[in-house]
Amino acid sequence: MAESEVKVLGVWASPFVLRPRIALNIKDVKYEFIEENMQSKSKLLLKSNPVYKKVPVLVHGDKPISESLNIVEYIDEAWSSGPSILPSDPYDRALERFWVAFINDKWSATIKGIDIADGEEAKKAAVDQVVEILVLLEEAFKKCSKGKAFFGGDRIGYVDIAFGCYLGWLRVREKHHEVTLLDQAKTPELVKWVERFSEHPAVVGVMPELEKLGEFAKGVFAKMRAAANLPPK
Amino acid sequence: MAESEVKVLGVWASPFVLRPRIALNIKDVKYEFIEENMQSKSKLLLKSNPVYKKVPVLVHGDKPISESLNIVEYIDEAWSSGPSILPSDPYDRALERFWVAFINDKWSATIKGIDIADGEEAKKAAVDQVVEILVLLEEAFKKCSKGKAFFGGDRIGYVDIAFGCYLGWLRVREKHHEVTLLDQAKTPELVKWVERFSEHPAVVGVMPELEKLGEFAKGVFAKMRAAANLPPK
Repeated sequence: MAESEVKVLGVWASPFVLRPRIALNIKDVKYEFIEENMQSKSKLLLKSNPVYKKVPVLVHGDKPISESLNIVEYIDEAWSSGPSILPSDPYDRALERFWVAFINDKWSATIKGIDIADGEEAKKAAVDQVVEILVLLEEAFKKCSKGKAFFGGDRIGYVDIAFGCYLGWLRVREKHHEVTLLDQAKTPELVKWVERFSEHPAVVGVMPELEKLGEFAKGVFAKMRAAANLPPK
Repeated sequence: MAESEVKVLGVWASPFVLRPRIALNIKDVKYEFIEENMQSKSKLLLKSNPVYKKVPVLVHGDKPISESLNIVEYIDEAWSSGPSILPSDPYDRALERFWVAFINDKWSATIKGIDIADGEEAKKAAVDQVVEILVLLEEAFKKCSKGKAFFGGDRIGYVDIAFGCYLGWLRVREKHHEVTLLDQAKTPELVKWVERFSEHPAVVGVMPELEKLGEFAKGVFAKMRAAANLPPK
């Protein structure tokens, strides 16, 4: 398969788009990244993901694959180059898939509560909900990592990718909303994991630059608050 | 592994609980079914699924696995007895996983619209939304089955299980709400598939009896309408 035959359709600021990009880096697969304009979607995107019309889409040769987690599992199964992303033992795989589904279900919905909190008390309650999830993920880290560096053990795995993709937006929110989410006292293992994950060679090149993401996020948060009839932060 | 070491914690009327049961039947794995009382959950359930405290849970030896689709993938990977549930080709697997995620995201949320529709016009709109999904699944059937009997081709596969589990409740809703959802004109392939699926040896023994489910559903629908401040049907 020629390198040019692997494309990722995405937008730079989307955490979901990072998932296939990190997975392809792990497998050492070169790909073309195509930045989509979501206000004027390309024909390739509309043809490749007719059901959702969303990014990311992986196009492998003439085959389109949609939905970020589905793409990561596909990458793991289609390329034997590079380390495995999911573990080989069925129970370990089930454990990782459980936490990935948990993250996917809960993270975005919960953290957005901070963006649209009305007043300091509501903001505190929203932060507490996020911290509750992080405390669960601290426990998950202990179970999945078995004392090693990553959720995936010695290597970056499925849970690392599924959760790690949100770290840029997490940091941007901490700064913008002046809150602490990742707390040394409550989630010490996660705090250390974040450093290791962010420095991993498969990750460094694709994580958006925090200042640029912060500027972009300001506009997003302002729109969310306007839509909810709330005063700007 | 002794037969007694496989347990499914569930409730008889839950479509999600059918998923692991059908998967275990396909693999010809004997298991103990333990009916849970969700108003007074067992210690085994609370210990096995501390995050969600929901059924189904598969307990394999001393290992608990939660979330119905996660369990089905685990069963496929842990037991090589019986046919595979997911296909072997990575792209075919991605295609099935895409549709399974689609069904899981959309089906329950959309079909409940009929249960809590306020008036005939709203009911019709809710039915149209369900039919829209069914028409997409008709297309998915053509793509996945490649002209064969099931979404999984010659054998019952991942999409068959993920969608087939809802058929009892679909039939009960058609009767209770006096609507047609599975329509010969709009979804002819699905109509034929429903018959084949329902008669499959891995399915017949576990699908709840329609009359019993219909009686149970009456109570569920009544509660849903009361909670939404709507008159009973």
